[in-house]
Amino acid sequence: MRILVTNCNTTQSMTDEIVRGARDAASPGTTVEGLTPSWGPDSVEGWLDSYLSAAAVLDALRTYEGPAYDAVVMAGFGEHGREGARELVDVPVVDITEAAAHLACLLGRRYAVVTTLDRSRGQIEDSLHTAGVGAHCVAVVGTGLGVLELGDAARTTDAFLTAARTARDAGAEVLVLGCAGMTGLERAVRDAVGVPVVDGVGAGVRLAESLVALGLGTSRVGGYARPRDKRRSWGRR
Amino acid sequence: MRILVTNCNTTQSMTDEIVRGARDAASPGTTVEGLTPSWGPDSVEGWLDSYLSAAAVLDALRTYEGPAYDAVVMAGFGEHGREGARELVDVPVVDITEAAAHLACLLGRRYAVVTTLDRSRGQIEDSLHTAGVGAHCVAVVGTGLGVLELGDAARTTDAFLTAARTARDAGAEVLVLGCAGMTGLERAVRDAVGVPVVDGVGAGVRLAESLVALGLGTSRVGGYARPRDKRRSWGRR
Amino acid sequence: MRILVTNCNTTQSMTDEIVRGARDAASPGTTVEGLTPSWGPDSVEGWLDSYLSAAAVLDALRTYEGPAYDAVVMAGFGEHGREGARELVDVPVVDITEAAAHLACLLGRRYAVVTTLDRSRGQIEDSLHTAGVGAHCVAVVGTGLGVLELGDAARTTDAFLTAARTARDAGAEVLVLGCAGMTGLERAVRDAVGVPVVDGVGAGVRLAESLVALGLGTSRVGGYARPRDKRRSWGRR
Amino acid sequence: MRILVTNCNTTQSMTDEIVRGARDAASPGTTVEGLTPSWGPDSVEGWLDSYLSAAAVLDALRTYEGPAYDAVVMAGFGEHGREGARELVDVPVVDITEAAAHLACLLGRRYAVVTTLDRSRGQIEDSLHTAGVGAHCVAVVGTGLGVLELGDAARTTDAFLTAARTARDAGAEVLVLGCAGMTGLERAVRDAVGVPVVDGVGAGVRLAESLVALGLGTSRVGGYARPRDKRRSWGRR
Amino acid sequence: MRILVTNCNTTQSMTDEIVRGARDAASPGTTVEGLTPSWGPDSVEGWLDSYLSAAAVLDALRTYEGPAYDAVVMAGFGEHGREGARELVDVPVVDITEAAAHLACLLGRRYAVVTTLDRSRGQIEDSLHTAGVGAHCVAVVGTGLGVLELGDAARTTDAFLTAARTARDAGAEVLVLGCAGMTGLERAVRDAVGVPVVDGVGAGVRLAESLVALGLGTSRVGGYARPRDKRRSWGRR
Amino acid sequence: MRILVTNCNTTQSMTDEIVRGARDAASPGTTVEGLTPSWGPDSVEGWLDSYLSAAAVLDALRTYEGPAYDAVVMAGFGEHGREGARELVDVPVVDITEAAAHLACLLGRRYAVVTTLDRSRGQIEDSLHTAGVGAHCVAVVGTGLGVLELGDAARTTDAFLTAARTARDAGAEVLVLGCAGMTGLERAVRDAVGVPVVDGVGAGVRLAESLVALGLGTSRVGGYARPRDKRRSWGRR
Repeated sequence: MRILVTNCNTTQSMTDEIVRGARDAASPGTTVEGLTPSWGPDSVEGWLDSYLSAAAVLDALRTYEGPAYDAVVMAGFGEHGREGARELVDVPVVDITEAAAHLACLLGRRYAVVTTLDRSRGQIEDSLHTAGVGAHCVAVVGTGLGVLELGDAARTTDAFLTAARTARDAGAEVLVLGCAGMTGLERAVRDAVGVPVVDGVGAGVRLAESLVALGLGTSRVGGYARPRDKRRSWGRR
Repeated sequence: MRILVTNCNTTQSMTDEIVRGARDAASPGTTVEGLTPSWGPDSVEGWLDSYLSAAAVLDALRTYEGPAYDAVVMAGFGEHGREGARELVDVPVVDITEAAAHLACLLGRRYAVVTTLDRSRGQIEDSLHTAGVGAHCVAVVGTGLGVLELGDAARTTDAFLTAARTARDAGAEVLVLGCAGMTGLERAVRDAVGVPVVDGVGAGVRLAESLVALGLGTSRVGGYARPRDKRRSWGRR
Repeated sequence: MRILVTNCNTTQSMTDEIVRGARDAASPGTTVEGLTPSWGPDSVEGWLDSYLSAAAVLDALRTYEGPAYDAVVMAGFGEHGREGARELVDVPVVDITEAAAHLACLLGRRYAVVTTLDRSRGQIEDSLHTAGVGAHCVAVVGTGLGVLELGDAARTTDAFLTAARTARDAGAEVLVLGCAGMTGLERAVRDAVGVPVVDGVGAGVRLAESLVALGLGTSRVGGYARPRDKRRSWGRR
Repeated sequence: MRILVTNCNTTQSMTDEIVRGARDAASPGTTVEGLTPSWGPDSVEGWLDSYLSAAAVLDALRTYEGPAYDAVVMAGFGEHGREGARELVDVPVVDITEAAAHLACLLGRRYAVVTTLDRSRGQIEDSLHTAGVGAHCVAVVGTGLGVLELGDAARTTDAFLTAARTARDAGAEVLVLGCAGMTGLERAVRDAVGVPVVDGVGAGVRLAESLVALGLGTSRVGGYARPRDKRRSWGRR
Repeated sequence: MRILVTNCNTTQSMTDEIVRGARDAASPGTTVEGLTPSWGPDSVEGWLDSYLSAAAVLDALRTYEGPAYDAVVMAGFGEHGREGARELVDVPVVDITEAAAHLACLLGRRYAVVTTLDRSRGQIEDSLHTAGVGAHCVAVVGTGLGVLELGDAARTTDAFLTAARTARDAGAEVLVLGCAGMTGLERAVRDAVGVPVVDGVGAGVRLAESLVALGLGTSRVGGYARPRDKRRSWGRR
Repeated sequence: MRILVTNCNTTQSMTDEIVRGARDAASPGTTVEGLTPSWGPDSVEGWLDSYLSAAAVLDALRTYEGPAYDAVVMAGFGEHGREGARELVDVPVVDITEAAAHLACLLGRRYAVVTTLDRSRGQIEDSLHTAGVGAHCVAVVGTGLGVLELGDAARTTDAFLTAARTARDAGAEVLVLGCAGMTGLERAVRDAVGVPVVDGVGAGVRLAESLVALGLGTSRVGGYARPRDKRRSWGRR
């Protein structure tokens, strides 16, 4: 099985990191390949970035010319675009936001998301709601760290632990890593906070594999019908 | 006062029609100017189109070089992008989807949206929900007509009346025109169906004027803070 | 255009103050006239007052003999009666509670109401919910000041700022002035708390103007049909 | 124990009928007395009537000079006023709308209300919601009969059975009689439709008795504190 | 009238205590009898206990050979089984969780439950929701005391008061005793915390009496049809 | 990896069938073993059966003496017990109801469940809600077939197709097989109805594998703490 993991930004090193996390999570026999959009923002922090990213990722999928793949994992936490990808491609599409939430629901009665900046909370709340899996989310907590500041592991862990305490007080029994760039932290954090910690990239890969293995694909009846034929231009000339 | 009305697609004739509707609805003393994105889809029907449109409209706002304006009205019914525009510009932003729903709530206990294709229902439902004004929407009903088929007035009115009956059976006391391209139909339809019919373009213009007149602007605290400085590229080179 | 603004209590000085606020907010060309009920409570603080006020305001509208008007703005924050007025008169009716909430939704993802006494919180919550616009309200916060204690500007501002901090902690990005008697505070408070502050009286006037300008009236199909003919007596003989 | 049952309208014959139903439902040892407001509408059908009724009923309670009572049952289905009565009197207050719904929840997973005119549906929905017991209500169905047309038993039963079928199709396992004037129909209807039918007057009496017997009274902390001292006039002089 | 009160655990002394509370609450002329399951857990604290208890209580009802009864009150706060009992017996079934919540809704706008261990919160939340009466519950607060530690009255009252303050801060105007073993505390606690305190056992008895007196029984249409004939074995041989 | 699949009833042939379905769905390298409770009902149709089944399945897990396993899949659609199993065992527990719903959410905007008897609808609705994944379920539709009548493939397919049309009309874009005994139907039905059809057994197996592979286990903080030490007896002696 071949899974295409799309980064939501143009930073190749982040794609590489995400692909590493995805490969760690994948089943034997699954090949993971990363796809970095050729345009868009170099990190996604806020609504404007997110909409720009959505178009750029859809363009990357649309113009992809590599080997065929069996599923797409979209690695932007709280970012837009998943429904468009479901229209566009003929294989299952899983977004890491929803993926993490789906697994979190299986591990405890209530979960919380720990993310980067506070400004991203609204997008994540909306993304969970529209994915149908927001009911058990008791909090989305910011750490105050930007996407590109996550490299400093000690600082990140500290900030995460503070946020995790807030989440626990709000009733969370499970935590979700609210940024693709946090992949890899989950084991360290889990030990420190004493609750399960779900990483969306790993969750997305496993859910995508599950859909493919079960022969399940996106419904074409209703919202995710194929895009209509029409003129579209993708970015300014 | 000067209001910039953004079309969500690249079809200039549709921009012209929307601007006509907006001018009809505007107060004396308000200038309305249209903005057509230089890229994107030629009509928006579905999620992929909507995300592409969102990025293109944000790019058009970002690179706009005309006279200063006091508010933005985004004329894509159910389309994405409004939160990004709120981050980007320093004046109020009103989306026609939410605008129509806000006014509809003042006219009856429950409202319904009559739109073009069934495939757009999901986007509209999500857009109303995330705008905080979905609670009183009892139905989003498709007419089966594509955006560019709305020109045939008799056929459009017929299809609209059929959809309106479905909406009434679902408990709607007010109808909302679920496409910017329907602007102008409201009076004809109102008489035929016997309930108030709200057009989002007119609603959006009046709400934008209201915010400006009251000195109200987008909150910068929380979700709609200004975009962070970073590298972004807008479309493929 | 002529707008009738109904005070919810019998205190003429408060009607005067509300009318001043309404006139400040109105468009050029709009005439604002106040209507003080001839009976009812001298201020509205609680459910009993609110129901008494509702009947008295409806009686005032029913027996009004002044010049014709184009819309009604009901200036009781969280008070009852708006649906009855919609049945009774043939012009649009806007209540300041819902009006403020509708505009607040356009300015930020979540809003809060800052009101007078804690005992009014329940009425306000119910009023927002039944108006269809409660979903994005994260808190209704009392200042501990009675309606007739709002005259002391320094004390009011202080109490408001304390309440505003509570609202911010609950996630509010926009504040709503939860009492008609607070009209005029919004600019002072806005600067102090750094978020948009919406006054219901101004919001109500602008929304009423918008409905009139767009030719929109209350739906007569369903809940707001005209009152049936029958014997009614309005108060004890 | 002595229970005061308030009619919501000025029609004494309806008070008498309600009192008969209440006495049939009461425990041995409970005395039921009716209270007819001296002003207000002669039947309540719509919002305007309902607000007028609320003030008139509160006035009747306020000026009541008969023997002391242990609880109040408010016999207006979907009508306003209950929260004001809770502020006003020092004994438990039960409204027949909420009472019927509470018992209905104990008899099946979902219930529906069958009422008089369609125009009352909104008030009933709001009343159930604000009472905290609307979640399991799947439908409020009108029979098309006005309050004062319920006298014709055959016609009423017929209309009720038609409405009951609609309710069943919506998933109702229990029906609620949505008008105080329907009291007495429940046994006949129950046999005809094969599901439990709850009458609010009987339910209200039994719930009021239960609260009194258990020594439970309205909370004075928060929303239902006693009315503040102030000038109030009750109706035009 | 004869009411059968089922304990949810095998501890006879707790059955005795519950029966005492039930008798205190019952009307003159009502006979209360306790039923202790012959198997199951000796106290119920958590989901596993609760499911075991549900089966054991249903078995006790199924094999009960005492005098006929008119209603069942199930005295396990937050425990499972009530819907099964509704299928099984031909008389009304009231669970103390829902009973307390129904009465609490009549006494204030919002209520909270004070229970034993934090681990029971989830079950109680789910039980209130599925009973249709969870909307006005603002908090379920644990005291940290196990079921069998409630004997120490001073310690229990102390822990209860601490929890009650948390509940008040969350907006509760009424408290519910969240364990059958707390029956008897309500008067002491009520005085100390100044808000109404509802005991589920008393509430359950009175609601059961009400249903019987009004001739109301469980709906057999839909979810609570009689159990189908089939082979079932109740516990390991 | 070794997965234990628990049947919810005592019918060994149904366990065998479920195990066949589970093995078809499992990854290479996963061993699936069935566990049939030694007591309980021979099929589960209704609440009483479901609670009896929950205790029996927990007893089977508690006394299981076979080889160690890595996860439990509970194969009762809409049946109780999953939270108890999460307390009891130290490996992930996935229930087929929630599993199917989680995957369905990834394939379309709204899903419906097609089940056996109408009487099971309530349990399924509650089970989806308490699992946090009910928001996108638009309908639970009965086929009218009992669990043990599913053997007749033609009749089952026919009944399923009729139910599927109802589901589609309610807005479902994806269907879920609402009974473990339907496993195997999904491919046939999918072709006939033209939408994705999710089987809970397969979904459960894949989700369980995913949790194990990612090193995720049930949270012990909060609701799913280990059962307390106490005396429990499992069925009558």
